[in-house]
Amino acid sequence: MNHAILLNNRPKGMPQIDDFKFVEEDMPAIRKGEVLLKTSYVSVDPYLRSKMNDAKSYTAPFELNKPMYSGIIAEVVESRHSGFEVGEFVSGMLEWKVYQASDGRGLNKVDVGRAPLSSYLGVLGMTGLTAFLGLSEIGKPKGGETVVVSGAAGAVGSVAGQIAKIMGCRVVGIAGSDEKCSMLSSDYGFDEAINYKTSKNMRKAIAAACPDGVDVYFDNVGGEISDAVLVKINQFARIVVCGAISVYNATSLPQSLSVQPFLVKNSALMQGFIVTDFEASFPQALAQLSQWLKEDKLKYSETVVEGFDQVPRAFMDLFEGKNTGKMLVKV
Amino acid sequence: MNHAILLNNRPKGMPQIDDFKFVEEDMPAIRKGEVLLKTSYVSVDPYLRSKMNDAKSYTAPFELNKPMYSGIIAEVVESRHSGFEVGEFVSGMLEWKVYQASDGRGLNKVDVGRAPLSSYLGVLGMTGLTAFLGLSEIGKPKGGETVVVSGAAGAVGSVAGQIAKIMGCRVVGIAGSDEKCSMLSSDYGFDEAINYKTSKNMRKAIAAACPDGVDVYFDNVGGEISDAVLVKINQFARIVVCGAISVYNATSLPQSLSVQPFLVKNSALMQGFIVTDFEASFPQALAQLSQWLKEDKLKYSETVVEGFDQVPRAFMDLFEGKNTGKMLVKV
Repeated sequence: MNHAILLNNRPKGMPQIDDFKFVEEDMPAIRKGEVLLKTSYVSVDPYLRSKMNDAKSYTAPFELNKPMYSGIIAEVVESRHSGFEVGEFVSGMLEWKVYQASDGRGLNKVDVGRAPLSSYLGVLGMTGLTAFLGLSEIGKPKGGETVVVSGAAGAVGSVAGQIAKIMGCRVVGIAGSDEKCSMLSSDYGFDEAINYKTSKNMRKAIAAACPDGVDVYFDNVGGEISDAVLVKINQFARIVVCGAISVYNATSLPQSLSVQPFLVKNSALMQGFIVTDFEASFPQALAQLSQWLKEDKLKYSETVVEGFDQVPRAFMDLFEGKNTGKMLVKV
Repeated sequence: MNHAILLNNRPKGMPQIDDFKFVEEDMPAIRKGEVLLKTSYVSVDPYLRSKMNDAKSYTAPFELNKPMYSGIIAEVVESRHSGFEVGEFVSGMLEWKVYQASDGRGLNKVDVGRAPLSSYLGVLGMTGLTAFLGLSEIGKPKGGETVVVSGAAGAVGSVAGQIAKIMGCRVVGIAGSDEKCSMLSSDYGFDEAINYKTSKNMRKAIAAACPDGVDVYFDNVGGEISDAVLVKINQFARIVVCGAISVYNATSLPQSLSVQPFLVKNSALMQGFIVTDFEASFPQALAQLSQWLKEDKLKYSETVVEGFDQVPRAFMDLFEGKNTGKMLVKV
């Protein structure tokens, strides 16, 4: 039998295990021109939460009683497609199933010899691309500038901060535990790390860590943390709005500090970033990320949970910050 | 005797007449290389409110017990400067005085034959430049897109909306009275006008006026009006944050709808606009504005108050929306 995970209910607030449905189904049969894929790793990411709502958006929401999907690494275990051989590994937006058929569209082959399989969902996948392109296309940090990263110990944040260091910036990370903060400083070379859970006054903490103000803010969280950064932005600051994990589970539209007076006073820019808008730049960005990885200029960490049935749990744990670096499920 | 208006107190909330000090002083004497200027028109603008606070900013705040200053048109009444002749008119950032000496720096000559004097503080001055460059540098409207303008009956908004119409857009204006709204539709060619003071549900009103969503939002006001527009923005929307008059008098940092989820969901941009950042584009922009004015494609209105001692009153009236178009004081 095959196993699949469907969307059972649209969550109200924080997702619950009942919002997912675990089903067994027949093994898929493949036709001519198709491959049979066996899932190796499932990526769970905060942005998936938005797709669980029935909100109008430019990407379709997940459908009720249909499989969830996300970035997945899979092995070709059977092939009737001339472009794929058994034993090859691919990445793509695939369904939360152990086995699935594919006609090959949207699949990218993964070079197992070059880097660990799982890294193609992280530093050499969407999260690495998000960090690199969010910074280079919107943040545009210049050497000597101060870059603040929220969600800094997460998959995107930890890479974004390291890239800003490579670019010669002063980098301040915000994370949710002393362990994460000490990792940011000692392993990833951040200049300062602020634990927002123990900091009594975030505005003062940001001010102390950024004596020259904030030139680039790579924002993964939104909410009060972002309010505290906003009051310290410099003239011509750039805010990369990459995510807003702190408000994804809000059941009503959340309120924050009004950004308009700060933006106008500082001629500052704030821009929503979705990595798939920049697909044309993926090859070049991946080449740069691979190069830095090879030169050991870029480190990454993963939180790997084992077992296909743990996918929803791993996803829910993101909202409690239980991951360090990329959260993955090994199947 | 000469007359001057100084900053007496830093206002708490809405400015009061006591925050200004009216003084008499000796007539200024000019030295070699200077001109004596007699003020003709004083521009009062919402942004001056920010400079009355003692807040750190990239432009210095007004100093207590020193003259206020703003855009002024003045006549050269005495000249010991080889570049200026008596009878010429100039514009510049000048002090709130009836007479003042100047060494000529920062003065621009004004062509009285080409357009009315007062227009050089409005449609052919900073407000026209703000409308044109805010739209062209940040808003970048394309033909067929929907452009929403708040503060639409004001000096900047009325010009911004007309330029968006020239560019082939559907233009929706938001203003604070039925008279203003009817002027937007009948005189300025806006497609729709919404009176935010009588509209019971701004979100529904915006949705009804913008059936295809909002591509460009030219924002002069901030606050709740901007919240209502935000929920209707389209993918790749651009928000020109030109002003935030609704919160300039707030005594604590105001809260609004969190913008981050809307920006990230729509890959949208929000950027603070200060016209002086774009000085290099002024000549080209003024040429275009003059051309449109000559072709009668651009109309403007003014609210002209008479008498130098009315400058503070005219300024305060801005915050109650008593002006239509550019608010000016004729001296």
